[in-house]
Amino acid sequence: MKDLSAIEVHWHEHAVSRKEREELNGHCGSVLWFTGLSASGKSTVANLVDHKLHAIGIHSFVLDGDNIRHGLNAGPAMLKQQHGDEFAQRFGLGFSARDREENIRRIGTVAKLFCDAGVIAITAFISPYRADRDRARAMVEEGDFVEIFVDAPLEVCEARDPKGMYRKARAGEIRGFTGIDDPYEPPAHPEMVLNASAKPAETLADEVIAYLQALGKIGSEPSWQKRFVG
Amino acid sequence: MKDLSAIEVHWHEHAVSRKEREELNGHCGSVLWFTGLSASGKSTVANLVDHKLHAIGIHSFVLDGDNIRHGLNAGPAMLKQQHGDEFAQRFGLGFSARDREENIRRIGTVAKLFCDAGVIAITAFISPYRADRDRARAMVEEGDFVEIFVDAPLEVCEARDPKGMYRKARAGEIRGFTGIDDPYEPPAHPEMVLNASAKPAETLADEVIAYLQALGKIGSEPSWQKRFVG
Repeated sequence: MKDLSAIEVHWHEHAVSRKEREELNGHCGSVLWFTGLSASGKSTVANLVDHKLHAIGIHSFVLDGDNIRHGLNAGPAMLKQQHGDEFAQRFGLGFSARDREENIRRIGTVAKLFCDAGVIAITAFISPYRADRDRARAMVEEGDFVEIFVDAPLEVCEARDPKGMYRKARAGEIRGFTGIDDPYEPPAHPEMVLNASAKPAETLADEVIAYLQALGKIGSEPSWQKRFVG
Repeated sequence: MKDLSAIEVHWHEHAVSRKEREELNGHCGSVLWFTGLSASGKSTVANLVDHKLHAIGIHSFVLDGDNIRHGLNAGPAMLKQQHGDEFAQRFGLGFSARDREENIRRIGTVAKLFCDAGVIAITAFISPYRADRDRARAMVEEGDFVEIFVDAPLEVCEARDPKGMYRKARAGEIRGFTGIDDPYEPPAHPEMVLNASAKPAETLADEVIAYLQALGKIGSEPSWQKRFVG
């Protein structure tokens, strides 16, 4: 009988490091944390940034409502079908302050995993509470967290209202909606503020790319050129 | 005032697809789901596979106790410090059957995110219940899920006992320990069975790599060679 335990210790020490993953990818991992009111343009700009990064050979990935609320942070109704009622009540996430805290906590931990994998994790959630965002920041190393405030006045967001959520909140059909009957706490010291009521999303996305280049997080050339040609 | 909502719809449709991410990476995303008793060698083999994949330019990432139980699926004691007692009791995961179900559910959703990012997600958890593994399988597309049974008899695992857990379980110091007083349900139809009591971890890892190559999930050459040289 082979004793794997000795090998285990050895190999755990030689697990692939973040630096080695970043070398394979040709750029650093990091977390771009978009925050702002519903309909401020977070998801639009986040997906544009993802698109632009991918086009220059950068490995990035967007975490947003589409892939998080239907999976990792599903609500009771969604969990019920697969796991039964009792499980769904115990583990399904709602929209109370505490459930939002857990929602953001989990997203922070997953963003950190992607960052450790050498990927640029892009999160696009309202994430209204400062303390929750600060905890997500504290999960990663200094300099890995780029907090991006997508700044648009409530009136602008409410006028857009692409999913009719503000209307429902004003009508009292949904409760605890950020900006209406739940507070949005703007970042005190975000790395970037995007003026999302004055500039088109395309311009804002370019600002983010330029910022990452200025920081040296990504090169200004497609990364495969730098690695395999230049 | 610019109307970003129209752009949003446009760009959501043009989000980077999984196929485009896989093209950048030079290989397919997938989920390698290791399952087996504690001390069967799951984590050892998983980390070796990760290491070998990385060495040939494949983007992979290991989810295991080290990075999941300290973050995403932290227990009450760990959450208490940052979030307070009431939050920790509400959201901290324990080791009851239901908590394990949620533990594996979350890991499945995160493995899917990595798979969608074009990465080979490698999970190394006991994951003792068949239904939990089957739900993780159902989260991804047919063929994306490779269930790998790390097969070692209980006696072998118990003799290794690198963390002294079996001893504690036998002494009644911990309860609900898989193989002692909680069941392990071996996979009915795993994609691979690794004979972890007869072969060294290195050989088992090579078997996994060969399987992925035979499936065409990864090339038999370093991927950058195929993309930029060949």
